[in-house]
Amino acid sequence: MTELSDVFEGFTGRDWQTGEEGTVRIAMVGLGWWTKEKAMPAVERSELCETTVLVSSDEERAMAVADQHETVVEGLTYEGFHDGKAREEYDAVYIATPNAVHLEYAATAAEFDKAILCEKPMEATVERAEELVEACESVPLMIAYRMHTEPAVRRARELVREGFIGDPVAIHGAMTQRLLEMNPDTDQWRLDPDLAGYGASVMDLGIYPLNTARFVLDRDPQSVGASMHSSHEAFADVADERASFRVDFPDGVSTVCTASQNAAQSSHLRITGTEGELELDPVFFPDEPRKLRVRRGDVDATLDFDQRSQMTEEFDYFADRVLSETEPHPDGEHGLVDMRALEAIYEAAESDATVSL
Amino acid sequence: MTELSDVFEGFTGRDWQTGEEGTVRIAMVGLGWWTKEKAMPAVERSELCETTVLVSSDEERAMAVADQHETVVEGLTYEGFHDGKAREEYDAVYIATPNAVHLEYAATAAEFDKAILCEKPMEATVERAEELVEACESVPLMIAYRMHTEPAVRRARELVREGFIGDPVAIHGAMTQRLLEMNPDTDQWRLDPDLAGYGASVMDLGIYPLNTARFVLDRDPQSVGASMHSSHEAFADVADERASFRVDFPDGVSTVCTASQNAAQSSHLRITGTEGELELDPVFFPDEPRKLRVRRGDVDATLDFDQRSQMTEEFDYFADRVLSETEPHPDGEHGLVDMRALEAIYEAAESDATVSL
Repeated sequence: MTELSDVFEGFTGRDWQTGEEGTVRIAMVGLGWWTKEKAMPAVERSELCETTVLVSSDEERAMAVADQHETVVEGLTYEGFHDGKAREEYDAVYIATPNAVHLEYAATAAEFDKAILCEKPMEATVERAEELVEACESVPLMIAYRMHTEPAVRRARELVREGFIGDPVAIHGAMTQRLLEMNPDTDQWRLDPDLAGYGASVMDLGIYPLNTARFVLDRDPQSVGASMHSSHEAFADVADERASFRVDFPDGVSTVCTASQNAAQSSHLRITGTEGELELDPVFFPDEPRKLRVRRGDVDATLDFDQRSQMTEEFDYFADRVLSETEPHPDGEHGLVDMRALEAIYEAAESDATVSL
Repeated sequence: MTELSDVFEGFTGRDWQTGEEGTVRIAMVGLGWWTKEKAMPAVERSELCETTVLVSSDEERAMAVADQHETVVEGLTYEGFHDGKAREEYDAVYIATPNAVHLEYAATAAEFDKAILCEKPMEATVERAEELVEACESVPLMIAYRMHTEPAVRRARELVREGFIGDPVAIHGAMTQRLLEMNPDTDQWRLDPDLAGYGASVMDLGIYPLNTARFVLDRDPQSVGASMHSSHEAFADVADERASFRVDFPDGVSTVCTASQNAAQSSHLRITGTEGELELDPVFFPDEPRKLRVRRGDVDATLDFDQRSQMTEEFDYFADRVLSETEPHPDGEHGLVDMRALEAIYEAAESDATVSL
């Protein structure tokens, strides 16, 4: 049984770090706000990475951002990237473009023998995600699920594994945000199925509780159910301005989730077991301090801890795996399981039926 | 818009009380632990009720309990009750027998022109619940949803109504307990479909988040989805040792719920809106102090308040309605909506399909 001291000691420690030293030079592919405001600052804070190349649709934009960053040696257009420009200046790529074009950048990076950190969902459809995995067989491919290196999630996973809450019984998870307040452009790619894939809220947000439940339970989904609703005009092309879905895992453990790109910002994951309960709230937004609530018997404790930058942890983990030449996780096969579940969730909502995986 | 002072003032006030005075004399029908340990003490603390008659399968048991309570004048068998014994000694009945026999006691009470407070779910099946409503047309009938008079739930409902969280988007709700620790008898009625109805966990526990979501939203369900799982031998006759279900309300507001009679005790209700969020945790267990968390913008406050006995509030509300000769709510028609939703939830799990209501 878990000792209390085990929970407190090494809470935020990098239990995954091999100790390998060095620097992985990264080409940032896609220069949206996420890359500029989250990924690049995270890499600046990292121990094992630096950004050396920027790739954007707009060369001027790439050069302008490049000028602001000392480590960056080249700003490229997508054409330049595919042509192999500056390919000696980076060891790995971070792909943060719209979902539907991950494949082409990943394929080019693999061709150049670069390691790949690809944002989630890994592509717009299952078929393209499968092509992506195939194209990247010869290089390290990691899907950017930053919850896998979030200390609070890792500790929750350990507590579940060690039986602290008994057998897991049910999980609640949610992620909601006000997308149009973050970006008022109603033509943005997240609202366009040609670029986002099956939809807007489950693809971009619902994937967090889905994947984190998988990670914490160490199980893969068996079947799903869902309902979706769109009424706001900005969501006219997608079914899921609001979504609620159920993911059934082996041994009768169900995860019930809600996701919306048009609701107050909120995120949580609650794991109820036969003997106790864990709750992470907030959990999925990198700028909100995560908390872990642990309940069992008569004790109910909320653990506050020294927060880690989720993106820095992710980049350093990825770099550690590249430097130590060990397989990064979550890999492409792991990401494919989510892609199949995502497709099934949209199909379940469309068909009003449980869909088996 | 709601002023902060509105939230603080009158938080636990009986906003439903008419001021009518008097005493409603109650016959307790069914002498299980709930009646003895929760209902009778609640009536003792009440302003407007007293227990005068006890009805049990076992006359000796009824007499033994009667001897311990000063106000009780008669202990009856079920036969004696149906025969009209001591019918001048009570004005109303509280029915807390197994679900599948609510109908016969309600019908007899109605025949004697008594007001009826009937535990939820109101019967074992939709058909019997419909018969119950019909049999009680001539008398006041209230279904014992104690959340309708729980101050924290009433305040949450007001905040939703007043638009404090914007438009409601999604609700999470759960209720779980360790039934076999409370009562180790595997032959107990809650595990027997002949007495409990469609199942064990959704009928007895899932009904709390289902009904409280209805009450807070002031809307009725349109469709449901569900999955269930039983593996423990005590749950061999029911599908839902563990259940997760979704209830779709008008305007695309979904409620996702989990319920289990074989998990650590826990209960919560979380209502996410376009502008903010409310969370009640814990909420459904009468012995746990309720808390209301209110989030909007940059503020996140957890309100602690002077706890009220949920059962005393319920009995006094019922008595107030009887004394003032006004219709009690939730009434039989309200209970029927839940019965139809419960049947549909079990059907949805069985058929792996969304079921419309």
